[in-house]
Amino acid sequence: MAADTRFHAAAGPLPLSCLAAAAGIAPPEGSEGRLFTGVATLQAAGPSDVSFLEGRRWLPSLRESRAGAVVLAAANAGAVPEGTVALVAPSPVLAFARIAALLHPPAAADGRRHPTAVIGEGVVLGEGCEIGPYAVIEDGAVLGARCIVGPHAHVGPNCVFGDECRILSHATATHCVAGHRVTLNPGARIGSEGFGFATTREGEHVTVPQLGRVLLGDGVEVGANTCIDRGSGNDTVIGAGSRLDDQVMIGHNVRLGRGCVIVGQAGISGSTVLGDFVVVAAQAGISGHLTIGSRARVGAKSGVIDDVPEGMDVFGFPAMPAREGLRVAAAMRKLGRSKAAARMPETKSD
Amino acid sequence: MAADTRFHAAAGPLPLSCLAAAAGIAPPEGSEGRLFTGVATLQAAGPSDVSFLEGRRWLPSLRESRAGAVVLAAANAGAVPEGTVALVAPSPVLAFARIAALLHPPAAADGRRHPTAVIGEGVVLGEGCEIGPYAVIEDGAVLGARCIVGPHAHVGPNCVFGDECRILSHATATHCVAGHRVTLNPGARIGSEGFGFATTREGEHVTVPQLGRVLLGDGVEVGANTCIDRGSGNDTVIGAGSRLDDQVMIGHNVRLGRGCVIVGQAGISGSTVLGDFVVVAAQAGISGHLTIGSRARVGAKSGVIDDVPEGMDVFGFPAMPAREGLRVAAAMRKLGRSKAAARMPETKSD
Amino acid sequence: MAADTRFHAAAGPLPLSCLAAAAGIAPPEGSEGRLFTGVATLQAAGPSDVSFLEGRRWLPSLRESRAGAVVLAAANAGAVPEGTVALVAPSPVLAFARIAALLHPPAAADGRRHPTAVIGEGVVLGEGCEIGPYAVIEDGAVLGARCIVGPHAHVGPNCVFGDECRILSHATATHCVAGHRVTLNPGARIGSEGFGFATTREGEHVTVPQLGRVLLGDGVEVGANTCIDRGSGNDTVIGAGSRLDDQVMIGHNVRLGRGCVIVGQAGISGSTVLGDFVVVAAQAGISGHLTIGSRARVGAKSGVIDDVPEGMDVFGFPAMPAREGLRVAAAMRKLGRSKAAARMPETKSD
Repeated sequence: MAADTRFHAAAGPLPLSCLAAAAGIAPPEGSEGRLFTGVATLQAAGPSDVSFLEGRRWLPSLRESRAGAVVLAAANAGAVPEGTVALVAPSPVLAFARIAALLHPPAAADGRRHPTAVIGEGVVLGEGCEIGPYAVIEDGAVLGARCIVGPHAHVGPNCVFGDECRILSHATATHCVAGHRVTLNPGARIGSEGFGFATTREGEHVTVPQLGRVLLGDGVEVGANTCIDRGSGNDTVIGAGSRLDDQVMIGHNVRLGRGCVIVGQAGISGSTVLGDFVVVAAQAGISGHLTIGSRARVGAKSGVIDDVPEGMDVFGFPAMPAREGLRVAAAMRKLGRSKAAARMPETKSD
Repeated sequence: MAADTRFHAAAGPLPLSCLAAAAGIAPPEGSEGRLFTGVATLQAAGPSDVSFLEGRRWLPSLRESRAGAVVLAAANAGAVPEGTVALVAPSPVLAFARIAALLHPPAAADGRRHPTAVIGEGVVLGEGCEIGPYAVIEDGAVLGARCIVGPHAHVGPNCVFGDECRILSHATATHCVAGHRVTLNPGARIGSEGFGFATTREGEHVTVPQLGRVLLGDGVEVGANTCIDRGSGNDTVIGAGSRLDDQVMIGHNVRLGRGCVIVGQAGISGSTVLGDFVVVAAQAGISGHLTIGSRARVGAKSGVIDDVPEGMDVFGFPAMPAREGLRVAAAMRKLGRSKAAARMPETKSD
Repeated sequence: MAADTRFHAAAGPLPLSCLAAAAGIAPPEGSEGRLFTGVATLQAAGPSDVSFLEGRRWLPSLRESRAGAVVLAAANAGAVPEGTVALVAPSPVLAFARIAALLHPPAAADGRRHPTAVIGEGVVLGEGCEIGPYAVIEDGAVLGARCIVGPHAHVGPNCVFGDECRILSHATATHCVAGHRVTLNPGARIGSEGFGFATTREGEHVTVPQLGRVLLGDGVEVGANTCIDRGSGNDTVIGAGSRLDDQVMIGHNVRLGRGCVIVGQAGISGSTVLGDFVVVAAQAGISGHLTIGSRARVGAKSGVIDDVPEGMDVFGFPAMPAREGLRVAAAMRKLGRSKAAARMPETKSD
């Protein structure tokens, strides 16, 4: 099935020449004028859909596919069934992304301001912004051109957003300065009070005022219900192009470089610094006050308690070089199957 | 203490005959006409309360209890104190659930539409729906009869919900088609953009349009602040009767069968498929593109990185058959206590 | 850089005598009249800022600092550069917190009620409350004096809050009785339905009505998007002064004593009881029906499956006494580096 047009706009039909150009692909001769209306998986695609082959394990589906065109790597072009156009690209998924965005363009700001939106004093809205019902934009906030502010979204006093930002349904942003093309998915919480307090001898926790901000670089995307606390004194910084999945937690004063990827339910504790293009997989955690070098990668569910050098993959808890962490994982599997373990005295948890 | 009637409706007094019938229990002769007003724990119950005995460790509390009636298994009926009615049921907790729901019925839709609710063009609301203050239901959405839409809840364009759904305070649903009796608890996020992108050679992450939907079967319940991303091309599917606890994260294209149970803070990565009645315990994680067979169970905090056959219990990280995983856990405990470990050279983390 | 006054109020300039008095510090003779306007890190502070030295590793920054005054321990007072006032305090961070709160006072309720706020019948608001746009306070709720109810916050029917509570943007509270000075950060969910159900032989999950409440003691602070489910029969209780970070999950019937600290993404399963001043670090999990003694501490990412005695530190999964858990962690590191592990047969996950 192609995309459900109740939920996704469809801009087609578009000629293959146009789609291929957007993807930087040369279409096979004679196919330039073929018209396409949508994208779909190999199984679901029909003659007017573009599909793509991500890896060789999908080859059987390719052979059965009725897709009108398939984006794939050169090595797999021979497996395309008759009648299907092979669109060869060095990165099929990237080319597919660009084609899909032409056929099903993301919603653009419609320039309307819902009458129920509460816009504070001194707010500056760039041209063409779309402001949804019950959005609240507090005094002094500044938004660039063509931003989308969803239903119930809340932008706190004096926050700054650049052009073409999307602050979606129920997102909250306070104490925040953001660049262009920033997306806050539903329920994201930007700029909440960090977890900072001092404890008296009697055990009373006294708040240390959290006096920093959150800085979001151009193109940052923040997942649903993800939380980025504001800095305590310095700022919390998310570098340009970084993407955070849902339910991620970023503590105060954390700094991410450019293009980092933080997968769902991962957490980074206060004052840790990540370089550029760091990847943190799902449910991983990184302790506070660490330095993670550029292009390092942290495996899923890992717990990082030491600095990680540039380019290193780490895995496990405590996180260690991935090769070592995988050895430990293999040893655990072996231990589980071993007779020696079976002979161990029972413990309460066994 | 019985339920606080400031927060929970009370429908009593009701005769035991009526309560027992709802639970499929035969009340002891002569007790049918006794009247009850509430339910309570064994310790808190008084003569007009029904209580229940979950397991044998509660027997001491039973002997001290002043409850008017106690639901319990046949084997424990002899321990009921004088003056307390023993209500014998094969599943005491299930029988108790049905009795409690009679005495303290869940809120039903009151049929009122708050004047501040924003209802878009072409929206169809079934009879008897209750729409709370500042709810936003966008153009073309369809809700069945007797739905409750809480304060600030947001239903996106063209979403479909069946009868008697509850979309509670601050929940968001977009790109979603849901059956009957679906509950979205506060802050649940349904249909947000999945985490899909391709990366250019220069390190720019380019969004792969997420063109699928979320399908929720009849009776699905989604916990507070839980996120279910919409599919990328296929749909994300939650089978009928499945229950998700708070802060669960479901990635794009994931498919759950019927009656699955996903406990708090667990996460399932993109495109993984679960059969029917799978249980995933708290804080567990399942990698993407896996198949988890029906009635499999994943232990708390486990990390599943391989397919799991039908009916298998797995535990640990990497998750292994539960018996093996528990062996490993026991071995870790033993290692912690061992002199050999104590003699190991100190490392930075020690 | 000192605090950005677009986002943080500044009450200065204030004389050092006043600041020092709030912190219980005797300022050096002759410095009492010096005026200060803000606080800042050692690197960022200028002559009109107060800074602080948290630990000896910051000594190099201290020597370079241009701060007008620095709060520090007596042992480090000698390292203060010329022209900087040394403010000696037994707990520098605590003294700094008190000084920062004078110079940058937290927002107090401004007594205004936004015209869009929906206030139900019989609601009692104490004097001086601030009620934000689109806040919803349902029938019968009672708030004490000087509370702040943020934009879109939702207080359910008959809920009770004491004086000077902050129910911030998008927070939800139902079935809740709270003391004074309670803070709910954005997106916190208090009183949602707990995860309680019984399953029929056919696999249908039947809700066990969740008939308890949430009780929040004086001074409790709840982080962004954190969830505290209401009790099933008994109440869920968070003791006075306890602080919960973002994305924490507290199951039904859990009871925390006074002054507990629960760090981000940690979870506590149903009916577990914590004593006073228990610390649960990030991403840790505690099984249900356990007892954790006062002043116990649970390490990050640990999984607690047994009771923990008073004052014990535990670590690991399964959690064991911290000394043992750290031994296991060290053994894992050693195993990862060992040749023996390298010689192990390859497994699928290796």
